[in-house]
Amino acid sequence: MPYFDAASSVPLHPVARQALVAALDEGWADPARLHREGRRARMLLDAARQTAAEAVGCRPDELTFTPSGTQALHTGVAGAVAGRRRAGRHLVVSAVEHSAVLHAAAAHEADGGTVAEVAVGRTGAVDPGAFAAALTEGTALACLQSANHEVGTEQPVAGVAEACRAAGVPLLVDAAQSLAWDAVDGPWSLLAGSAHKWGGPPGVGLLVVRKGTRFAPPGPSDERESGRAPGFGNLPAVVAAAASLRAVRAEAAAEAARLRALVDRVRTRVPELVGDVEVVGDPVHRLPHVVTFSCLYVDGEALLHALDRAGFSVSSGSSCTSSTLTPSHVLRAMGVLSEGNVRVSLPPGAREEDVERFLAELPGAVASVRAQLGAPASAPGAPADVRADGGPDASEASEASEASEASEDAEEDALTVDALGTLCPVPVIELAKVIGEVPVGGVVTVLADDEAARLDIPAWCAMRGHTYLGAGPDGTSYRIRRAA
Amino acid sequence: MPYFDAASSVPLHPVARQALVAALDEGWADPARLHREGRRARMLLDAARQTAAEAVGCRPDELTFTPSGTQALHTGVAGAVAGRRRAGRHLVVSAVEHSAVLHAAAAHEADGGTVAEVAVGRTGAVDPGAFAAALTEGTALACLQSANHEVGTEQPVAGVAEACRAAGVPLLVDAAQSLAWDAVDGPWSLLAGSAHKWGGPPGVGLLVVRKGTRFAPPGPSDERESGRAPGFGNLPAVVAAAASLRAVRAEAAAEAARLRALVDRVRTRVPELVGDVEVVGDPVHRLPHVVTFSCLYVDGEALLHALDRAGFSVSSGSSCTSSTLTPSHVLRAMGVLSEGNVRVSLPPGAREEDVERFLAELPGAVASVRAQLGAPASAPGAPADVRADGGPDASEASEASEASEASEDAEEDALTVDALGTLCPVPVIELAKVIGEVPVGGVVTVLADDEAARLDIPAWCAMRGHTYLGAGPDGTSYRIRRAA
Repeated sequence: MPYFDAASSVPLHPVARQALVAALDEGWADPARLHREGRRARMLLDAARQTAAEAVGCRPDELTFTPSGTQALHTGVAGAVAGRRRAGRHLVVSAVEHSAVLHAAAAHEADGGTVAEVAVGRTGAVDPGAFAAALTEGTALACLQSANHEVGTEQPVAGVAEACRAAGVPLLVDAAQSLAWDAVDGPWSLLAGSAHKWGGPPGVGLLVVRKGTRFAPPGPSDERESGRAPGFGNLPAVVAAAASLRAVRAEAAAEAARLRALVDRVRTRVPELVGDVEVVGDPVHRLPHVVTFSCLYVDGEALLHALDRAGFSVSSGSSCTSSTLTPSHVLRAMGVLSEGNVRVSLPPGAREEDVERFLAELPGAVASVRAQLGAPASAPGAPADVRADGGPDASEASEASEASEASEDAEEDALTVDALGTLCPVPVIELAKVIGEVPVGGVVTVLADDEAARLDIPAWCAMRGHTYLGAGPDGTSYRIRRAA
Repeated sequence: MPYFDAASSVPLHPVARQALVAALDEGWADPARLHREGRRARMLLDAARQTAAEAVGCRPDELTFTPSGTQALHTGVAGAVAGRRRAGRHLVVSAVEHSAVLHAAAAHEADGGTVAEVAVGRTGAVDPGAFAAALTEGTALACLQSANHEVGTEQPVAGVAEACRAAGVPLLVDAAQSLAWDAVDGPWSLLAGSAHKWGGPPGVGLLVVRKGTRFAPPGPSDERESGRAPGFGNLPAVVAAAASLRAVRAEAAAEAARLRALVDRVRTRVPELVGDVEVVGDPVHRLPHVVTFSCLYVDGEALLHALDRAGFSVSSGSSCTSSTLTPSHVLRAMGVLSEGNVRVSLPPGAREEDVERFLAELPGAVASVRAQLGAPASAPGAPADVRADGGPDASEASEASEASEASEDAEEDALTVDALGTLCPVPVIELAKVIGEVPVGGVVTVLADDEAARLDIPAWCAMRGHTYLGAGPDGTSYRIRRAA
């Protein structure tokens, strides 16, 4: 039963398992105690810190173990912002950071600070120049992920780190998705990681604070882990985390090359096998093991269940698969289709034959979901797919939106579709069904109150070549001009 | 090699080990995911929560798993105080709470709140009436441990919880030391625990927030664990924690009776075997497995090392064994001797013959440390020891201190000992050496700048029957009147 959701969590690496079980016997005591059990625990902790620091490329005394990657990010943001309070209270983040960073940013804002989100292009990457321009006077901290967790796009971290250094602003790098593969280049100041993403056990994160970085840990004081991670340490898991990081790094180059080839195959084949698909994320500057695509006229949750029944575990950024009813903020920031979204993230050791079987099963799974929803017919390999690799669609849509202002009065050939109260992907399906009923140049207005429509209707227009004229002032109507 | 430091951390219970290893294979995925690995993880998490809730005596939806007991306490205090902000910003804690509670209280104070510490008697217990009297208008939260971690004294939690309910103030109970033995009685509102204290793995704490308790979690938002514990959960450890809590509870009554008898033996025999010893903590209302005593004229760290060489792992609240240079706040609040302090805490399964061997080794270990320090001779079973069970020494010392005001001028038979720059237990040793050089009624002034002297000189006076006249205004001189 192939598990293709490595970006969520990876099964324990054999080295992690072995180290964890051994450390249960050796590392259960309090490393702050003077007795032999305490000294033994201290030695294990020191050795684990040394190992992890070597893998990260930092000094051991710069690295603390936290209970999770999320807590490393929360503490990293709060501590760096508090430490730089005199410099200002402005925080700069990319729009596609992990929710842990965005939640920390929201807490900073609630506390009276200000936050700027740097936009990304259609591939999901920030522009280093735009990021540098956002480092205004009073910026206490900047945050940028090493690679995106949903679409796999690598960020230009080294360049952004240089720009931050030039501006005198510390950069916090969320390296959760990439630390299994390599250390992070560039003069960053803080870095966070999460062991269960690299095959270590859950319950262990890393927070690195470079010497010379001002840092004031938030919350009640605690003498452990340089005051940056309160609570009795999770030593057996820490030992396992460090040992497995070293182990996965030893295998990283070969495994990355192997998985990259498998992902390339998925990127190429999926649009050939399934119609109306948008493969998203940078095709070159990306994590070796992640590929994400969205399928028009597909309910993401239904597709996940269909794939699950076929034996494949994947995840989705579609709104219908989460509790929030809003599509993934990453897909939204990229301006790409969110409906029928599937992320395939291959764990180390993923087998070629399982990937082939996935490619064989996917068309039937998509077709069955589309049939249930009464979606329009889709032909594989439709011209729209070529835009998936980060074409100029987003800017086109933006121009189209401006153009709409000038053409408000030419609506004699108009039609309105009421999709109020329906959820993704129904509004887009209803639109697709009627677009042929207006003449070329005619306008369809879709009434829809599902959050995803705001993203998916423009994305559909870009894929189909129609002109998106923009949303109504109340955000529950969308106008589309038929192109051909 | 007997490990007698169970109150710090207990080796993994066999059931915890078994459950943890099994859950490494079954419980590594994200329980929020829809695929089969996620659903399996969710089932394990739900079952663990049900099991833990049964042991605590709460509803499963009242219980969240945190990364540590410390984080449960930090979040519990901050969340309850924030939730009750309208009621006021006053926090009431006992003076002998775990440092995690006192650090949370200090953070509350730094944030503009107020804190009152309820004093304890010589046994280490709060008086329920005094605690109730401290619940003044504007009290947002009260905190009381179920039992003390350093001296084993049980607190009158049920009565204090009733008083809190009557006053409309939520009570947070730190049950870290007692949860292995039993659920906590009384109408408490919040409760915290720590798995590695009951034989579960490190990396798991419990925070229980009763329905109807106002609670606003601190820090950045996170959808997991009711928003009370951000970060990817440590599921294998959570499963092991819950399974082991159920397992230790099944054995608790029999094991408690057995350990209680061993501790009673230590309490009785130590003063018979070693001179100038004060056994501290309540002799009856106490944890079954903890006994603490302090030895005059002994360097706690040296004694710990001597016992470690003899094969026994214990801990100490003496200042010379910690990094802070101040003696344990618990011993200080109790007003008992802090020098040469030893805490023996027996893990489940501790063997009678090991306890006997400890009793056989202890006198030699103490004697060797005293000899190194050139301490006065001590005779076992000295009368001072009978005061150890909570006699009126503390109030006597206080009266003596008041009496000192009236006798400032009768100092013709006086002597000054300069112990400035020396550390515990040297100032007390120097005092003991010269007390015979002044006549009965004569006064010795000790100059000492070690923090521990403030506690140990009055305690020595109480043990020896001399009159403590008080400290000088700058806190580096102490006056003692020879009694006999």
